[in-house]
Amino acid sequence: MRSLINGVEDWLISVQDRGFQFGDGLFETLVVDSGEIKNWSLHWERLCAGCERLFIPQPAEMLLLSEIDHLSSGIGKEIVKIILSRGVGERGYAFKEMDATRVVSLHPWPEFPLENNEKGIELFVCQTPVAKQPALAGIKHLNRLENVLARHEWQTTQYAEGIMLDTEGNVIEGTMSNLFLVKNEKLLTPDLSVCGVHGVIRQRIIDQCKSQDISLEVTDVSLDMLKDADEVFICNSVIGIWPVRKIKSDEYSVAPAQELDQVDKSSASLTRLLQKGLLQ
Amino acid sequence: MRSLINGVEDWLISVQDRGFQFGDGLFETLVVDSGEIKNWSLHWERLCAGCERLFIPQPAEMLLLSEIDHLSSGIGKEIVKIILSRGVGERGYAFKEMDATRVVSLHPWPEFPLENNEKGIELFVCQTPVAKQPALAGIKHLNRLENVLARHEWQTTQYAEGIMLDTEGNVIEGTMSNLFLVKNEKLLTPDLSVCGVHGVIRQRIIDQCKSQDISLEVTDVSLDMLKDADEVFICNSVIGIWPVRKIKSDEYSVAPAQELDQVDKSSASLTRLLQKGLLQ
Repeated sequence: MRSLINGVEDWLISVQDRGFQFGDGLFETLVVDSGEIKNWSLHWERLCAGCERLFIPQPAEMLLLSEIDHLSSGIGKEIVKIILSRGVGERGYAFKEMDATRVVSLHPWPEFPLENNEKGIELFVCQTPVAKQPALAGIKHLNRLENVLARHEWQTTQYAEGIMLDTEGNVIEGTMSNLFLVKNEKLLTPDLSVCGVHGVIRQRIIDQCKSQDISLEVTDVSLDMLKDADEVFICNSVIGIWPVRKIKSDEYSVAPAQELDQVDKSSASLTRLLQKGLLQ
Repeated sequence: MRSLINGVEDWLISVQDRGFQFGDGLFETLVVDSGEIKNWSLHWERLCAGCERLFIPQPAEMLLLSEIDHLSSGIGKEIVKIILSRGVGERGYAFKEMDATRVVSLHPWPEFPLENNEKGIELFVCQTPVAKQPALAGIKHLNRLENVLARHEWQTTQYAEGIMLDTEGNVIEGTMSNLFLVKNEKLLTPDLSVCGVHGVIRQRIIDQCKSQDISLEVTDVSLDMLKDADEVFICNSVIGIWPVRKIKSDEYSVAPAQELDQVDKSSASLTRLLQKGLLQ
């Protein structure tokens, strides 16, 4: 792994960095393909929203872009992760104006099984809940113990992802993804106003639905609604969209993954149509 | 600041440490006075409970003690902070068995105003809630953004601490302390089974009440109950106990801070009696 810390090629930070002390910061996971950062404007928007919420000074966009470019020039498809912490501080929660720590790192492209997309995945249902915390909802902050514990609940490759419910049993998200369901040609996705991460692909799907007149509702989603769905899929920046074929004993139809130019509306699989839209 | 990382005098950790990536770890803040670690067994107990909850291998107690001793030998009263993170990992929430990162650091004793104890403190009421998260309740983990945001709500020295409520309005704790109230010679402290940190001094007070037949209830505490209290105090490992003299417009009587041998039950201030017991 290569990384830049505040613009300098390095991989060590101070133990006094508040990212390490308190998880006091934000991150973004980007796909960079032959020099092109996918969905940059949405990642940047979320990072800025996080800075505002946590009172962390926003980095200069051009600086960040040049650092990403520096690390990823000449490579194919890789992952770039940005971590922005509040910086090095004293003991104790209080902080004054500080210089943030900016880490940009390069990671190999993860090779997922092709069948995750082609045949769909099976979802695990996690016991670890997502806590309702309006002060942190939506942003991609570094306090990720919930996701770590939820992801640790299953160890087999049978499940490609696990879904997490809030403390009242509403379906919120996957450990590393957002979730949508299709019912009667209508798209539904959990309301994330009190917990969960506003995913970049989730946002693109919402935008796509608006521009293409696809009916979509952001609402409370129960396990019963999932049970009853026609299609279910998950999404994130790295995987794009994966159809879900099974949750517990419930199975969902997964339309064939056609070549993009062969997908048309008559295929009646909203999941595949959205994949087509996303990839265009 | 001096620190040992896995036993070696150093102050740098990898950006890939999961403490930095996800706040994936635990900490303890200890008082060491002329070589004696205060309340070690309770700190150790909580650290072990945290390891069990987060599936982090427990460090050897003797090793940790020798590292604390190494750093603090020959000094007077100082703070030692232990951070135990899951260690250095790959990108992504999943983890296998890993070598934890163990950081032991030495910090100067913070000089608090004497009047915090003598006259009592004023408490700020924070807007940032404590999220209800049974999976993390009680343990002293590194996901501390709630505390950071709550502590940032006030900047003046008028308030020595702020109290935090859960998302349903129950009083839970201070940003860096636990809270007790006295009503009709009975002690009450918030139930921390779904959120909050099980403080070491809180535990000592609970134990003290049992052994001295002082009536104590661990229960839901509302702001109205605080309003109505005869005495209120906060506590943590570093400050011990501070009486509270004011919350918003409500004022509380604070008994004089007498010499320890002059305190007797007829003084009728449970806060001062508990201070005496703690210090014995």
